[in-house]
Amino acid sequence: MKTGATSELRLDHYLEVQRARVELLLQKKLEGLADRTPARLLEAMRYSLLGGGKRLRPILCIAFAEAVCKGTAPGRVTDDAACALEYVHCYSLIHDDLPPMDDDDFRRGKATNHKVYGEAMAILAGDALLTEAFGVMLGGMEESRLHLARELAVAAGACGMVGGQALDIAEDRPSDEGYVIRVHRLKTGALIRAACRMGALSAGGTTAQLEAAGVYGDCVGLAFQIVDDILDVTADPKKVGKPTQRDQAKGRFTFPKVSGMPRSRTLANERVAMALAAISKIEPNPGPLTALARYSVERGT
Amino acid sequence: MKTGATSELRLDHYLEVQRARVELLLQKKLEGLADRTPARLLEAMRYSLLGGGKRLRPILCIAFAEAVCKGTAPGRVTDDAACALEYVHCYSLIHDDLPPMDDDDFRRGKATNHKVYGEAMAILAGDALLTEAFGVMLGGMEESRLHLARELAVAAGACGMVGGQALDIAEDRPSDEGYVIRVHRLKTGALIRAACRMGALSAGGTTAQLEAAGVYGDCVGLAFQIVDDILDVTADPKKVGKPTQRDQAKGRFTFPKVSGMPRSRTLANERVAMALAAISKIEPNPGPLTALARYSVERGT
Repeated sequence: MKTGATSELRLDHYLEVQRARVELLLQKKLEGLADRTPARLLEAMRYSLLGGGKRLRPILCIAFAEAVCKGTAPGRVTDDAACALEYVHCYSLIHDDLPPMDDDDFRRGKATNHKVYGEAMAILAGDALLTEAFGVMLGGMEESRLHLARELAVAAGACGMVGGQALDIAEDRPSDEGYVIRVHRLKTGALIRAACRMGALSAGGTTAQLEAAGVYGDCVGLAFQIVDDILDVTADPKKVGKPTQRDQAKGRFTFPKVSGMPRSRTLANERVAMALAAISKIEPNPGPLTALARYSVERGT
Repeated sequence: MKTGATSELRLDHYLEVQRARVELLLQKKLEGLADRTPARLLEAMRYSLLGGGKRLRPILCIAFAEAVCKGTAPGRVTDDAACALEYVHCYSLIHDDLPPMDDDDFRRGKATNHKVYGEAMAILAGDALLTEAFGVMLGGMEESRLHLARELAVAAGACGMVGGQALDIAEDRPSDEGYVIRVHRLKTGALIRAACRMGALSAGGTTAQLEAAGVYGDCVGLAFQIVDDILDVTADPKKVGKPTQRDQAKGRFTFPKVSGMPRSRTLANERVAMALAAISKIEPNPGPLTALARYSVERGT
């Protein structure tokens, strides 16, 4: 499909430029801590924070700020929100990889934090990144920072991301679609939703724009997760309807497993349609937000 | 000494009343999360947060707010700051007790969080308490909350409490007094200092009052730690000059070990004198802050 290909091409470029910018922002923020942070702790934080990644949350935050501001370059508050979101995402991965949690030895082709620095330091590096996320978000006098930091706390806390992790490790979790949606909506969706809302908020978005950003984030977050699960299966056709080895080891249920492949695809497509409807007023001419929503389901097809 | 006895008696009553008030505040805050937090996660958070403790940090926060306001009852912002400080303290204990860190089975005569809920849930309960600390601190529209939450982030983060923990588990740590002071100043001192400053800040304290609160917190925090180390030795005279069994197992150095008993006592007394001098303008007539500073060195003697 020609439109799709063109929009994907533009998106690649957009993502590459934004990612490079986010890398620089994150590097500078960490440098700001260097003279007062114990060297080994800083090294462990740096190893994971600057160890690659799609930077989806910061990019969504910046894209929403730009859409609300009609293309104006993002200001300092937006940049700080983008960094704070990645700090929180990064801490959650470090703690998630620990032996009592997922017990993963590798992430993004590199040894996980605790394999390099030991479990104690990995726990502390995660704790430090979570705390410094708020330090970064609150590092200025603008009143909007209070709202942004609150949004971050709600999305990352007991009723958001950490709550989702707790549901995901529950021993008696049911194997129905409703529960799987609930887990992902909290575990990964809450922070993606916050990224969209915080971007709009940092650029002075209206209540209607904030709500649209929330719907978009909720839907695109779930679509990404469903398609990740589908791609795990299609990468190896023998797995159709079965959880991946890692999911099985953890007793986790994937969308293809609980809902079947056709319904999983329908669910993902429905969410993207809802996301596109929600942002039609923020981004009237298809831009990066439209392209990102489409990409969430079109990848790998 | 008659004055000492009278002041200690009054202090006991003051601490008892304040502690009861803090318990109620913490209970109410947790109840506010109940309907949207997974039950097991909430239970693990509650187990440690409402599992006893001196509540030293919330009480210091409230006492400074009262001193700055000349005895007026603390407002909502002060109460929220007091709760946020205890959330952070509580999370740090849960993570500190984990097997890769101190590997403690008991705290305050009860099984530690991970012994009851498992290591994965204990990590998450700590993460949730740290995140919700900021949720509580940012749960209102007052501008002072921005400054208070920033103060909390700096004290608890990589250049504060977590930094101190990282120094404390470093393999190549030196055994000199300077290093031991640096570790404690960050590991326990930074949050106690923040408690004093946040109390003054929440009550609209002046820059001079904030500085005095900072000096008081720094000095009283260190005095408490030195006297804890001394009491560990005097409780069992055979230990004079030796680290406690647990400290030895961790390779930790205590004040009596690195500085000797007489110098440890002198150090503690010097800090208390500095604390008393610092608050003489905030609390011109000896009140709870004066009594607390004296108590930090007079206990057990």
